[in-house]
Amino acid sequence: MNAVINTVVLLSRDTLLLKQLQAAFARSAPQLTAVLADDCRAANAQMAACWFPLPGSLGTLPNLQVIHSVAAGIDHLDHDPSCPDLPICRVVDPGHRQGMTEYVRWAVIHYHRGFDQVLSQQPKQHWERPLQRAAGQFKVGVMGLGSLGSAIALDLTAAGYDVRGWARRGKELPGVHTFAGVEALNPFLDGVELLINLLPLTRETRGILGRATFEHLANGAALVNCGRGAHLNIDDLEQALAKGQLRGALLDVFEQEPLPVDHRLWTMPGVTITPHMASAASHDCIAEQVAENFRRLNAGEPLLNCADRVLGY
Amino acid sequence: MNAVINTVVLLSRDTLLLKQLQAAFARSAPQLTAVLADDCRAANAQMAACWFPLPGSLGTLPNLQVIHSVAAGIDHLDHDPSCPDLPICRVVDPGHRQGMTEYVRWAVIHYHRGFDQVLSQQPKQHWERPLQRAAGQFKVGVMGLGSLGSAIALDLTAAGYDVRGWARRGKELPGVHTFAGVEALNPFLDGVELLINLLPLTRETRGILGRATFEHLANGAALVNCGRGAHLNIDDLEQALAKGQLRGALLDVFEQEPLPVDHRLWTMPGVTITPHMASAASHDCIAEQVAENFRRLNAGEPLLNCADRVLGY
Repeated sequence: MNAVINTVVLLSRDTLLLKQLQAAFARSAPQLTAVLADDCRAANAQMAACWFPLPGSLGTLPNLQVIHSVAAGIDHLDHDPSCPDLPICRVVDPGHRQGMTEYVRWAVIHYHRGFDQVLSQQPKQHWERPLQRAAGQFKVGVMGLGSLGSAIALDLTAAGYDVRGWARRGKELPGVHTFAGVEALNPFLDGVELLINLLPLTRETRGILGRATFEHLANGAALVNCGRGAHLNIDDLEQALAKGQLRGALLDVFEQEPLPVDHRLWTMPGVTITPHMASAASHDCIAEQVAENFRRLNAGEPLLNCADRVLGY
Repeated sequence: MNAVINTVVLLSRDTLLLKQLQAAFARSAPQLTAVLADDCRAANAQMAACWFPLPGSLGTLPNLQVIHSVAAGIDHLDHDPSCPDLPICRVVDPGHRQGMTEYVRWAVIHYHRGFDQVLSQQPKQHWERPLQRAAGQFKVGVMGLGSLGSAIALDLTAAGYDVRGWARRGKELPGVHTFAGVEALNPFLDGVELLINLLPLTRETRGILGRATFEHLANGAALVNCGRGAHLNIDDLEQALAKGQLRGALLDVFEQEPLPVDHRLWTMPGVTITPHMASAASHDCIAEQVAENFRRLNAGEPLLNCADRVLGY
């Protein structure tokens, strides 16, 4: 009788992530053999754990039975056209909402209290206290009021900010002035000093972070994009920053990740780049959930967190 | 009958602050004439509103009746040896605690989530997601459990961090592991990944942020100084950063403010300088409280927030 060898292949264009994931699998799922694509054992892999897999990488694996995204989203699998028609699972980390809330709180205080200004002053050895205002005087707008957006709007309201929210459909949130639908977008944007995007990417929202939106914000507003890279029109952002219409932008998501080393966003004045870190599942959580689905696969039990490829989530 | 001219002179070595204060007095206390030291009307001033006054500036004002600090502290008045023996008042902004809490929350998320690492990667166009851990795995130590320190320890506990506190005398705070007295300092420091200083400056605490303290922290810990500049031993900080014993330091207070343009802290790797902004009174609040004390002075009523120069607060 042959021993069952449970092999998972880790696929990503992000080589640093691959190393970190391999260490996490060794720590938190030692019952699995976690290999990279260039390992000869990859051909045995029954499961692939993916984050932006390289084109062609999924199509070469003869024993694959399940494709596992290492994130909540699965759209990054589209970067590999060879992706076979197999069950797709996602990782759902209970710390997801907490992580996003922390990231956004940092961003709000960053712009509210003028840390952006202060950090840019240090290389000039320039001492100037930014204008300090109470949180209640700082107008924050949250686009997208799903599970994450609602949690964030409520967290910022509790912290004393003047918070409003916008979503396609109406939503009631205590203490938050909410707006619904396309016709309410401009009234929502009016006077907002910090705009936080948490929308899903759809035909209607693609490119929504563009000139028409920026023009309705308060002059010198800041932007935080935690949605998707394709929400942002980079040309419009560059112009708005150059004109001072926007004072800065904190970007965590990009159409291509990792952001290519020669991409103009890296050096665009006023842009701060973070490596899709706002609410990533922890590496150990990824290893544990992949291992649990591996156990279920072997036992013939239903897999956890299956996704619908047509719906996209 | 002569009209009463209520003149306040604004004194500081910080020329930008002077401009901002003058604008705030015009906005929020238009009944006063707020002038700078080089204005011939300064000689009429019955009150001086001060932040690090230049040496000799207070002694030349013949009509001065009250010296007003524009902050909660009054030790900065010692920078002018000509300061006459007159009643001293302070500004107490109810937003003080809120402002400090925001500043520290930013700092905690900054180091917990690795924003310091990410900001240092951007100039190299380097994409690397910092190791992400849950807040409950991040050990924060708060030195000083007075009104501000206690509020911060509780705020961070509510945000899910692993918080401990240290003070000269014992203090009970729900959810916070507290330590009291000199003999408990090393056990308090053991394993702390972010040390936040909010101690008062006394003979016992001067230089407390030095080698002996740094050696007891977790390797690669970070430091936040919101106490006083003289708490910090700069030589020891430089060595600890160079060795990697500390990964970074966020400094808001300095022995001389503004921090001189040629000071080595501006360019010390790993050091982030903020211009004493953590919990400053708002400029409008300063103008309003100075104006209220001016009214009381004219009406013969007791002044608000008087300080004892010998006690130092």
